[in-house]
Amino acid sequence: MTNQQYQQCLEACQDCATACHQCAVACLNEKDVEMLKTCIQLDLECAVICNAAATVMSLEGRFSDQLCRVCTDICNACADECEKHAQQGMEHCRRCADMCRKCATACEEMAAVGH
Amino acid sequence: MTNQQYQQCLEACQDCATACHQCAVACLNEKDVEMLKTCIQLDLECAVICNAAATVMSLEGRFSDQLCRVCTDICNACADECEKHAQQGMEHCRRCADMCRKCATACEEMAAVGH
Amino acid sequence: MTNQQYQQCLEACQDCATACHQCAVACLNEKDVEMLKTCIQLDLECAVICNAAATVMSLEGRFSDQLCRVCTDICNACADECEKHAQQGMEHCRRCADMCRKCATACEEMAAVGH
Amino acid sequence: MTNQQYQQCLEACQDCATACHQCAVACLNEKDVEMLKTCIQLDLECAVICNAAATVMSLEGRFSDQLCRVCTDICNACADECEKHAQQGMEHCRRCADMCRKCATACEEMAAVGH
Repeated sequence: MTNQQYQQCLEACQDCATACHQCAVACLNEKDVEMLKTCIQLDLECAVICNAAATVMSLEGRFSDQLCRVCTDICNACADECEKHAQQGMEHCRRCADMCRKCATACEEMAAVGH
Repeated sequence: MTNQQYQQCLEACQDCATACHQCAVACLNEKDVEMLKTCIQLDLECAVICNAAATVMSLEGRFSDQLCRVCTDICNACADECEKHAQQGMEHCRRCADMCRKCATACEEMAAVGH
Repeated sequence: MTNQQYQQCLEACQDCATACHQCAVACLNEKDVEMLKTCIQLDLECAVICNAAATVMSLEGRFSDQLCRVCTDICNACADECEKHAQQGMEHCRRCADMCRKCATACEEMAAVGH
Repeated sequence: MTNQQYQQCLEACQDCATACHQCAVACLNEKDVEMLKTCIQLDLECAVICNAAATVMSLEGRFSDQLCRVCTDICNACADECEKHAQQGMEHCRRCADMCRKCATACEEMAAVGH
């Protein structure tokens, strides 16, 4: 993975963490919060793991690839959930799902080839 | 502060956290680490506070402005230290100082006017 | 502040962050989530700031006292909200309020006298 | 894993993160920092991952076990490095190694049996 790809992966993790938190807070303010419980739960978990992945990458950590593997899995799980609500017109979920897929792809590459 | 300015402040905090960690690790690999002890110490502290500020902003937190005030102070302290080493040709310190000043300015505005 | 008090403040921040997250997740699983929106929101914000305070203290950061001041404020705000629900019998809110008050007191002392 | 074991694993992660940061800062203040570069690097990485594991566990996250697996590996790597310096009399490295092994054991159990 080139330095540029590494930097892009790091930024995808940061953007995903932000989108997840923004989605969680927007979900909390929707009329039917009950329906969005799993989404909020996954958003919060995903944000923590993305943030840790970005931080470990910024430290040039040697466990970046292992952490990126976990990050791929949670991002895909979060995107799966968000896409359900995106289909019902929730813009924050659509945006979050996009960021999660982008992050999952970048982290999968990072986990596979390392830095 | 407009939504766009808010988002820019959030991203300035994330970029600054990344630059601080990258600077800390680069400092650790310099020949004269001894001279860079204070720089590493401030880098690490600054990264934690910038990260927290970005996270609280992504959560639309009501204490964002208070946290941004602390962020301004640590960013300026870190930039002051990095600039000393930037003058001696350390590129990672120059880059880190730039990011810290940019973040300090954005956070100062956020602390002053709120969201 | 003695080393022992410093260590206790750091641990109060960690315990508070944990209690806040546990309260947020328990709130999400209550029947009437709608009523607990503000509580979840404050829990999440409080957890981030407590975590940052604990981390900066573990780094012997020189901005620990400033951060502890913000921590006192968010902890008291979170405790105020949790206490409302504790009165209605929510055990996770009662526990969270207790941890928040303990953390607020320790952080206030830290902010006042430093390390 | 019982609730009590889960809580103990979470606290082991928090204690380890604290010990790692304290070790990193103490290393920075040793006379021969050069010799401790790898130790500082691993300390910082270990602290981030332990912190993330504790946070995800406090959120009852479903990826806790995957994250605990990564945590076990970085904790053992950090302990291996710290033990070298503990043999040379560095108390902070001895303490950090102890916390890392304790955390690695708890996380290994968590990764194996889940919650």
